[in-house]
Amino acid sequence: MRLTLDAPLDMHLHLREQEMLDLVAPFSAAQFAGGVVMPNLIQPVDTLARLRDYRAAILRACGGASFHPYMTLFFREYSREELIEARGEIIGLKLYPAGITTQSEAGVSDFDRIGPTVALLEELGIPLLVHGETNGFVMDREREFLRVYQWLAETFPRLRIVMEHITTAEAVTLLDRYDNLAATVTLHHLMITLDDVAGGLLQPDLFCKPIAKTPRDRDALRQAVFGGHPRLIFGSDSAPHPRHKKECCGCAAGVFSAPVTLPMLAQLFEEAERLERLADFVSTNGARFYQITPPQKSVELLRTPWRVPELCGAVRPFLAGQTLRWSLDEGSRGRE
Amino acid sequence: MRLTLDAPLDMHLHLREQEMLDLVAPFSAAQFAGGVVMPNLIQPVDTLARLRDYRAAILRACGGASFHPYMTLFFREYSREELIEARGEIIGLKLYPAGITTQSEAGVSDFDRIGPTVALLEELGIPLLVHGETNGFVMDREREFLRVYQWLAETFPRLRIVMEHITTAEAVTLLDRYDNLAATVTLHHLMITLDDVAGGLLQPDLFCKPIAKTPRDRDALRQAVFGGHPRLIFGSDSAPHPRHKKECCGCAAGVFSAPVTLPMLAQLFEEAERLERLADFVSTNGARFYQITPPQKSVELLRTPWRVPELCGAVRPFLAGQTLRWSLDEGSRGRE
Repeated sequence: MRLTLDAPLDMHLHLREQEMLDLVAPFSAAQFAGGVVMPNLIQPVDTLARLRDYRAAILRACGGASFHPYMTLFFREYSREELIEARGEIIGLKLYPAGITTQSEAGVSDFDRIGPTVALLEELGIPLLVHGETNGFVMDREREFLRVYQWLAETFPRLRIVMEHITTAEAVTLLDRYDNLAATVTLHHLMITLDDVAGGLLQPDLFCKPIAKTPRDRDALRQAVFGGHPRLIFGSDSAPHPRHKKECCGCAAGVFSAPVTLPMLAQLFEEAERLERLADFVSTNGARFYQITPPQKSVELLRTPWRVPELCGAVRPFLAGQTLRWSLDEGSRGRE
Repeated sequence: MRLTLDAPLDMHLHLREQEMLDLVAPFSAAQFAGGVVMPNLIQPVDTLARLRDYRAAILRACGGASFHPYMTLFFREYSREELIEARGEIIGLKLYPAGITTQSEAGVSDFDRIGPTVALLEELGIPLLVHGETNGFVMDREREFLRVYQWLAETFPRLRIVMEHITTAEAVTLLDRYDNLAATVTLHHLMITLDDVAGGLLQPDLFCKPIAKTPRDRDALRQAVFGGHPRLIFGSDSAPHPRHKKECCGCAAGVFSAPVTLPMLAQLFEEAERLERLADFVSTNGARFYQITPPQKSVELLRTPWRVPELCGAVRPFLAGQTLRWSLDEGSRGRE
């Protein structure tokens, strides 16, 4: 059996820099027509000059493969002139609360001050992408942040807001209250709960932010995604760390799912008997909310078992060593 | 300032075997007159012969230091004859639900079948020590198990039951409903929450079972312990793992707190302005509930800062590298 996806998109992606970028970008380019690239590099991408350099580096890292990097700027106070100049080259601004995840120290520490920049985004039609967590208790951080989303959605009714990598039943509920909200959902949050991270042996490879939540939360995500919610968008949040950053005392957060995303998503949708909705989740929903026309590119999956490698370079991928039921048709890779 | 404790006891302790036993036993012997030794070795301690061998090995490992190992047998179905023979050499039976923690595969999988053995314990006056967790969602396991404690306390009203290493507000509440329940509380559960384990970087050294819970739970434990609850008993649950078992993908559960217990407990009680209650927690409460007369041994703490080493042999101790306000008076070590 063969499954052909038209212009699948990964709408939340960490590609890193330098050697790591060169290692991981081809995995995304092999599976997707494009992806939304996060700006939280060691030095955040918060100027147009830096963004252009980063975009060029990404295209180089993809080699010949066709992949459209939808670039984001790291949220700070921007002037109207800056945003007007950037508008044609970005898909949105990515807002991080300060210190909430990897390389987010330069993020927002005072939400009372973001109004003017957010108002400009609304006026200029630039989406706002948000890592929505407070600094509260780890299992409550997303739920506590929902009032900020609510405030944004009500205060800026024409602003398109993306709740990134949602993990809770309550976030799904909020989505239905405001048409100007959408949300990305990762592969791993459709699969794991805190039990998988810390219920048996501790599993650093499954440690991510937001942390995986309860079975109830996961079920709510699954139900909404497999149910075909039109404003739920696939975003892998694939976030590679070299092996040693996952093993020392103090392990970095991030699941490197890029090598396995589409095959595993196909398996999940098939198990849920909703394979016909996979294309909406990975193609249509994102393009519609972001109002983009992705490059033409079809990606083909085969219903042929495939064993995930233990390592991709220095990085251990999500589901390492496991056998998936679907695989990427390497022969069709990058067909345009 | 000097603090002298009469016969402090660590009423929940993992001493392991062989080289690890030789490494860790002296830390406990330096601080305590005795301790309740857990029986979940690779081959569980579930015969009197094995128990005698283990006891001899522990005494050898303590070298010359005075330390009374209060031995436990791993819970299984025992005959009356076995229990009568063991009675004088054990402080209780330790019950593990099957597969719930390190080396608990041989534990109880069917609670409907434990009644006869538990009735014998009640009749013979042998305490039952319980690792009280279900196989449910990791944050709910202890709360879900409370109904088993309730059933035990009501069905066997003369049985002394110890809820081991409790971590939740609800367990504290249950304690007040039944006089035949007591509970051990660890040092680390008085200090950390899930935020410390997985709220920032992932910290394998703080990963333990039961997993650290919410700030609300920790506060309830603190309030009850510092408030002088007469049936809350110190048990460190110190559980060493060699470094490599804490760093590979799949980290073992257990906090090695033995080297720091009394100095850190003194600091906590001092911060809570309840230093006068430390002796109840680490000496009186345990001896009273277990109806034991510990060996005479006083242990002295000095209010002299002390830096916890990064490693004790191959094991990283709890609070490694941190400076504590109290230290063990090495000169007084083992004074009898």
